Amino acid sequence: MADNKKKVEAITSMDVDFAQWYTDVVKKAELIDYTSVKGCMVIKPAGYAIWELIQKQLDDRFKETGVENVYLPMFIPESLLQKEKDHVEGFAPEVAWVTHGGLNPLQERLCVRPTSETLFCDFYKNDIQSYRDLPKVYNQWCSVVRWEKETRPFLRSREFLWQEGHTAHATAEEAEERTIQMLNVYADFCEEVLAMPVVKGKKTDKEKFAGAESTYTIEALMHDGKALQSGTSHNFGNGFAKAFGIQYTGKDNKLEYVHQTSWGMTTRLIGALIMVHGDDNGLVLPPKVAPCQVMIIPIMQKKEGVLEKAEELRSRLVKVGARVKVDDSDKSPGWKFSEQEMRGIPLRVEIGPKDIEAGKCMVARRDTGEKTEVELDKLEETVTGLLEQIQKEMLERARNHRDEHTYVATNMTELQEILDNKPGFVKAMWCGEQGCEDTIKEKFAATSRCMPFEQEELSKTCVCCGKPATKMVYWGRAY
Amino acid sequence: MADNKKKVEAITSMDVDFAQWYTDVVKKAELIDYTSVKGCMVIKPAGYAIWELIQKQLDDRFKETGVENVYLPMFIPESLLQKEKDHVEGFAPEVAWVTHGGLNPLQERLCVRPTSETLFCDFYKNDIQSYRDLPKVYNQWCSVVRWEKETRPFLRSREFLWQEGHTAHATAEEAEERTIQMLNVYADFCEEVLAMPVVKGKKTDKEKFAGAESTYTIEALMHDGKALQSGTSHNFGNGFAKAFGIQYTGKDNKLEYVHQTSWGMTTRLIGALIMVHGDDNGLVLPPKVAPCQVMIIPIMQKKEGVLEKAEELRSRLVKVGARVKVDDSDKSPGWKFSEQEMRGIPLRVEIGPKDIEAGKCMVARRDTGEKTEVELDKLEETVTGLLEQIQKEMLERARNHRDEHTYVATNMTELQEILDNKPGFVKAMWCGEQGCEDTIKEKFAATSRCMPFEQEELSKTCVCCGKPATKMVYWGRAY
Repeated sequence: MADNKKKVEAITSMDVDFAQWYTDVVKKAELIDYTSVKGCMVIKPAGYAIWELIQKQLDDRFKETGVENVYLPMFIPESLLQKEKDHVEGFAPEVAWVTHGGLNPLQERLCVRPTSETLFCDFYKNDIQSYRDLPKVYNQWCSVVRWEKETRPFLRSREFLWQEGHTAHATAEEAEERTIQMLNVYADFCEEVLAMPVVKGKKTDKEKFAGAESTYTIEALMHDGKALQSGTSHNFGNGFAKAFGIQYTGKDNKLEYVHQTSWGMTTRLIGALIMVHGDDNGLVLPPKVAPCQVMIIPIMQKKEGVLEKAEELRSRLVKVGARVKVDDSDKSPGWKFSEQEMRGIPLRVEIGPKDIEAGKCMVARRDTGEKTEVELDKLEETVTGLLEQIQKEMLERARNHRDEHTYVATNMTELQEILDNKPGFVKAMWCGEQGCEDTIKEKFAATSRCMPFEQEELSKTCVCCGKPATKMVYWGRAY
Repeated sequence: MADNKKKVEAITSMDVDFAQWYTDVVKKAELIDYTSVKGCMVIKPAGYAIWELIQKQLDDRFKETGVENVYLPMFIPESLLQKEKDHVEGFAPEVAWVTHGGLNPLQERLCVRPTSETLFCDFYKNDIQSYRDLPKVYNQWCSVVRWEKETRPFLRSREFLWQEGHTAHATAEEAEERTIQMLNVYADFCEEVLAMPVVKGKKTDKEKFAGAESTYTIEALMHDGKALQSGTSHNFGNGFAKAFGIQYTGKDNKLEYVHQTSWGMTTRLIGALIMVHGDDNGLVLPPKVAPCQVMIIPIMQKKEGVLEKAEELRSRLVKVGARVKVDDSDKSPGWKFSEQEMRGIPLRVEIGPKDIEAGKCMVARRDTGEKTEVELDKLEETVTGLLEQIQKEMLERARNHRDEHTYVATNMTELQEILDNKPGFVKAMWCGEQGCEDTIKEKFAATSRCMPFEQEELSKTCVCCGKPATKMVYWGRAY
């Protein structure tokens, strides 16, 4: 049977094998497919529609802060990539190189952008002359390429989609302000739209972006207790400006270097959605990023009037702004239920001949499994109310999970005990020396996720070396 | 003065040097900048905002016809590109080749996609099994790369943005239907949104897409009388399906090849907007793709109440759905007028102390230069009415220009006379032999633009060889 491949099979339980569960969800919710190009994926309609909703809502938030979108080339001449020393060291080992155009070798090889700081600098160098040209607050939506050895759908692939903001400012203060502002936009977006709580903080020098003065991050906790870096915002100071010669004439007629920032979020967020909200029945999507929010499933659909009623309910719900579909395929209702669950559609409406007679329908929540009988003339208010409630409660549940899986360690024995037995974030004090980060990484395969903005004094001494502590750090094993 | 570069200088007149006029507009309306990467451009905020409006409105029209968006990799393994013979011959000479990933040479080189037929085929080969999987109506928004020797902003560059739709169908009829359907979507979009009339027709075999069974096109006429191919839709029959082995099991349990189409539109449309509507004062944008539709320019803005009133008008106009800005910079009003004109903003509202006192303001149309005094309490209805009227009249003017510059030739003498003295479309009969197309191209540097759907019998014989004619063709010099 050609149709066998469509059967909704049980997926691996997340408690049995989380990695396999993740891959199963990605494949069976039809988010992604593998390709002939090693490490590159196809984002299928169900996956891309989530990305479109992320894009739209994030872009609206950007624009409210004055961001303007642009598009820069995907190629970077080798000499341009090399202008900022730390940056090229960080990226050169993992870029793809174009060496031929048509039948001819290029005079200078070009890399496919792994990120576009150097291109924006080259552009700003000419575009910025006077203080009147500042600030520049530009962003682009595009794909970038990093030649990773090991790849996983959404989390790490050789090509991925993202947005990269690149700004230039007159003063250091203004650049720092924008860096933090965009981190806050990211954090609010994750909480309010993705229902995903994050820890905001600063990366240690070891973990910061190649060429940045400081890197800020939002870190989320996945269901298996691993951390996922979900968005970063970098302050470059005037380092790139000096390397590229980006100067402006101030009001006092003096030449000054600009101060720059960059910040990015990627399709990795879809991986985060899966691993924060998913369960053993598949994907669970927060209503705000669910391409379909309500699936209406007719029962005994061949009976007169059932499909008509389903269609009537659909059009009523569309009128109140919900994204709704009717599954009128010739599969069995049970099969349709499984598919709706696998795809993470927040609400299911079941409607059959008896319901119609009784003037009722059944509404089932994907997140809790709860089923309620609803009078047909109250369907609109019930559905809009439930969608709001689901969005809110998904965030609460994710926050509880995060809090319940955040531990404190004051010495290496405790740290190891937690990392080995209780996967999650570990808060611990740190002396500020990279040596201790290296030791912890080597011994426990854990890294410093961030120095959170909300600092606590858990003890006086570094969890690793016992010397006086200067910072509280979130540690964890990460994707 | 650092600000000199901002001065609104007169641009070259289009009658003096159309090519230079075009470049001047592109630069001075701040649509594009050149980069260190030869043949690649930066699309600046004013240019990208137009593209966003095009994207949004075209994408909405796609989705109404059932199109789903996806994202496929940007790299094509060489062996994959080579699977369809005509296709690889058409594209191999102009692709960019990636030969190294990080520090290592690749086992097989990859080209950066010039178009994605081969990738979609490779994907569909596994994704399509049964007639239940059909049709597939997928599209992606991305950039593509073609290593062109001569480039011009928007019209021809080594990297450009576009959308490419790729569909698979059970029958030849359905594929042909979709090919024509998307051509009609394009044509309606050009007329209704870009205010740009187009001629719909079929390409001759000589001009069709590499690998296609038939190519349909929409052709627009630029202000200088040159033609611009503005969108194409291809029917591949089952040629690619056979080359890639894309088969499905039909209802009768037999294996069949799918029938495929593809269709695309690009950032070249922005070039078309410039050359169809622009004038010697710069860009003229149809309201539907104008990122800013109304620029409010305060007169004597330092006087009390002027800026406040300007802001009040702005917020009133925003409420009725217009895209409005206030230019409160410290430039002179005259300077601001020139900038608003250069950027093609459809309406200008002038408001100063005397106007406020009289309860009036001045509204100026960018397309006709017409100025009207408007009572402040009638501003909303006037502005929304004018925006609609401008959209409509810009299409009418462009259509008149196109019709006035469409000629008929019945022999080679007439054809030459027209092409040399009256730039425009030339309608002429054709025998159907490629030899005649070659002759006309060689002698007059003109090509067959399309065999229009609306055929006429202008004469009985081919314009070139005098043998019996089979088709009427639009000929022209093209971008």
